[in-house]
Amino acid sequence: MRALGLDRAAIASAGKLRHGQDEKERRPKAETPKGFRDYFGAEVSERAAMLATIAEVYHRYGFEALESSAVETVEALGKFLPDVDRPNAGVFAWQEDEGDGKAEGGGDWLALRYDLTAPLARVYAQHRNHLPTPYRRYAMGPVWRNEKPGPGRFRQFYQCDADTVGSASMAADAEICAMLADTLEAVGIARGDYIIRVNNRKVLNGVLEVMDLTEGVTRDAVMRTIDKFDKVGEAGVRELLGKGRLDASGAFIDGVGLSDDQAGPVLAFLTSRADDADRTLANLRAAVGASQAGLAGVDELEEIATLLQAQGYGPDRIVIDPSVVRGLGYYTGPVFEAELTFEILDDKGRPRQFGSVAGGGRYDDLVRRFTGQAVPATGISIGVDRLLAALREKGRVGGQEAGPVVVTVMDRKRMADYMAMAAELRQAGIRAEVYLGNPKNFGNQMKYADRRNAPLAVIEGEDERARGVVQVKDLILGARIAESATLEEWKERPAQVEVPRAELARRIREMLDGQG
Amino acid sequence: MRALGLDRAAIASAGKLRHGQDEKERRPKAETPKGFRDYFGAEVSERAAMLATIAEVYHRYGFEALESSAVETVEALGKFLPDVDRPNAGVFAWQEDEGDGKAEGGGDWLALRYDLTAPLARVYAQHRNHLPTPYRRYAMGPVWRNEKPGPGRFRQFYQCDADTVGSASMAADAEICAMLADTLEAVGIARGDYIIRVNNRKVLNGVLEVMDLTEGVTRDAVMRTIDKFDKVGEAGVRELLGKGRLDASGAFIDGVGLSDDQAGPVLAFLTSRADDADRTLANLRAAVGASQAGLAGVDELEEIATLLQAQGYGPDRIVIDPSVVRGLGYYTGPVFEAELTFEILDDKGRPRQFGSVAGGGRYDDLVRRFTGQAVPATGISIGVDRLLAALREKGRVGGQEAGPVVVTVMDRKRMADYMAMAAELRQAGIRAEVYLGNPKNFGNQMKYADRRNAPLAVIEGEDERARGVVQVKDLILGARIAESATLEEWKERPAQVEVPRAELARRIREMLDGQG
Repeated sequence: MRALGLDRAAIASAGKLRHGQDEKERRPKAETPKGFRDYFGAEVSERAAMLATIAEVYHRYGFEALESSAVETVEALGKFLPDVDRPNAGVFAWQEDEGDGKAEGGGDWLALRYDLTAPLARVYAQHRNHLPTPYRRYAMGPVWRNEKPGPGRFRQFYQCDADTVGSASMAADAEICAMLADTLEAVGIARGDYIIRVNNRKVLNGVLEVMDLTEGVTRDAVMRTIDKFDKVGEAGVRELLGKGRLDASGAFIDGVGLSDDQAGPVLAFLTSRADDADRTLANLRAAVGASQAGLAGVDELEEIATLLQAQGYGPDRIVIDPSVVRGLGYYTGPVFEAELTFEILDDKGRPRQFGSVAGGGRYDDLVRRFTGQAVPATGISIGVDRLLAALREKGRVGGQEAGPVVVTVMDRKRMADYMAMAAELRQAGIRAEVYLGNPKNFGNQMKYADRRNAPLAVIEGEDERARGVVQVKDLILGARIAESATLEEWKERPAQVEVPRAELARRIREMLDGQG
Repeated sequence: MRALGLDRAAIASAGKLRHGQDEKERRPKAETPKGFRDYFGAEVSERAAMLATIAEVYHRYGFEALESSAVETVEALGKFLPDVDRPNAGVFAWQEDEGDGKAEGGGDWLALRYDLTAPLARVYAQHRNHLPTPYRRYAMGPVWRNEKPGPGRFRQFYQCDADTVGSASMAADAEICAMLADTLEAVGIARGDYIIRVNNRKVLNGVLEVMDLTEGVTRDAVMRTIDKFDKVGEAGVRELLGKGRLDASGAFIDGVGLSDDQAGPVLAFLTSRADDADRTLANLRAAVGASQAGLAGVDELEEIATLLQAQGYGPDRIVIDPSVVRGLGYYTGPVFEAELTFEILDDKGRPRQFGSVAGGGRYDDLVRRFTGQAVPATGISIGVDRLLAALREKGRVGGQEAGPVVVTVMDRKRMADYMAMAAELRQAGIRAEVYLGNPKNFGNQMKYADRRNAPLAVIEGEDERARGVVQVKDLILGARIAESATLEEWKERPAQVEVPRAELARRIREMLDGQG
């Protein structure tokens, strides 16, 4: 089978390559590339469990799994065009060799996907005749970014997306929001610990329209200023739209130079959120005035709010919030963002809101660039690693994974007996293993069991075997006693008990249950 | 959150790039790169389910999950050294840009992992001070090969490995074989439908030793001939080791040119498999004669056989078979191969054995190239996609996934009601969705439900709403009736029933259960 010898050949043959060379000289560094990391044990299984839970919710909503290839042509990814000088700005890209092994010549440029949305566009365009329309699909897996890594920012990370392609109905957007709320609760975020905020790009377009800003530059300046609303607030935005503003450092930031009248609609837009959807919508209508685009956007928001209300998703879970501006530049209609509202301590020990764990919206250029036909689409992307980090903060997942019961080796000639014990335990559904290191030093075996976080260790020496018993060491209890030898309850429970060999599995099960 | 706007920006901005350009001209091809493919629906969920089952078995044996980065430095992968002319022979590799965006200069060469073993070497060398020793780990995920794709051969495919690093004990090898047998049965391969064959590289070394072949070229020629044993059999190998042989096409293949005496040990080795392990081992001892290496190899095989026997893994599941030669060149001790023994029909309709789905062995250069210290290791790699293909052949997995209950849209102004129905069904654990396409043409809604493989469709028009009922269409029954209108049992069951709106979820559940 191709997936074998060749693989495992690698190490050996690489070793051979080096024979007769000065090994010290030639030794490779044992490191991940900059910005990449490895995941161990519970980090892996907890993520797998979360992805399975999310997939189950998506599936119940009628979404179909899709796993596209991790490698795409740069052409299909679309964001990056082949450029001999800078082929891989933002992505990891390389040029296909043409079989002659040389990268010169006309080989395709390939790249690792940087998200799960661009591949969806390619997949839908390629397979649309065999896919249902509308096409609801979910996808989960790693994506790669050729960016400067930062603390907690890696160049490979997981995303988990759900998109509906081929439906222009606001019902599709409402469904995505409802599904996102169900998903967050399914993975363990309590109601009240999250809020899904909904906005609409068309409303902002309407605002810009009534401001009568035709000139692109000024429009962009206004957009950039709106993006600062979270930081500088209403007053700050007012100044930045006008003459300018002294920032905290005392530096003066030039303003966009609008009159108060011109700036009015933007401020009305940014501050239009009220206690209930109806009043928020009324404020937005006022802000967009006579703009047809703007009014269409408000109508879309109203329709989404109505559909969600009818299913019982109130403003405690999903709220219309015009101050959601991030990403507005990219979308063509509704925009969603899910934030976790509980506070955590940042690296400097200061409390701050955990913040965004998911976002998305409606975008209509998804497939057009391949087929020439506009195809409406809307979707959401969950930042799985951030969501996991949040659950760890809340203690909902994490902590050390329970290790296996370790069967120690007192007599290496009796290995078969020890392996038979482990097999018995596994057949009883108990995680178990035999110590496979050098058994000479029993202390090392106990150190190993400790490092494996083993709850129990099984010991059978010559004497025990003669008497048909085994010793079972309670390592968790042992550790507790070592910590606080005074506590009576533990004094009473012995940290080591002798059990009949014939009752091994049953008695071990009892002890494990006793450990809770 | 970083994982959002930017991603979903890609499409839109790519679209923008093209504004004012001749779209036809600039339209990208909607295709995966050569040798890559996408996986849909059940293909994805069935693989996920299999990986979860395998992980559970590995975990119960005490193996820890590891997910290393998909990207490694070429230096760490080891098999391929940076070569400006041919940087990516066999792997997908590229040179890190240095921030200035130019690939020129001293950026590291990075590559996609081509298996899960080379990364394990790097991880163990990098983290060995924090890992238990011996370190049992499992890993599952895609690997990438820059090879010429063929039918059923893709350049991205899944592997699922388990390795024990840091144990020289044959108990580690025996454990791997036992775990592999348990795994194959856990995923649905019946006992008797698979065989795990075990051989040992040292035995072959011993055979070559007693043949007194010092000159490398001849030794390699013998190895190549041994590899042909499966094809040409004993007589063929005898000829090829000697003067040569006329092959099927009538062409004459030159032989290695050994005398019959010299060729004797190889033939004894290849034909040494007997009905039981003891006799096979005796034959092997005879074949390796006085070679210390050879006798050590036979002892190792005997130890593995004894350990497995003691746990009840007899030759019906795991057998010593010296004719396992594939990969022998790479390993330093025991070698394992798992084969499925049932027959399938090949593309030409001829019956053939399904063949190998997993393999591995012991190799001791795993970590040495990083640290200079030899670290013994042994492991197995399962070809997940081939194993899935085998289970599909046996009908153990596959077939179409059950689609969602489709709630149709008779009156688009009542969308909220239809979505509430779907929500009710989902809360009852039933997969359900509302039709989100243009509802004008009801025929299209039925075609959609059909394409989604929906078991039931819910219909509520004005009349039904007035009467507080809904119509439920049994699409599976409907299809059967359409096929064979004569069968009485179906005539009796109506393909469409009217149920009270208030009992929607309960009645739908009953109908789904009735469909079995």
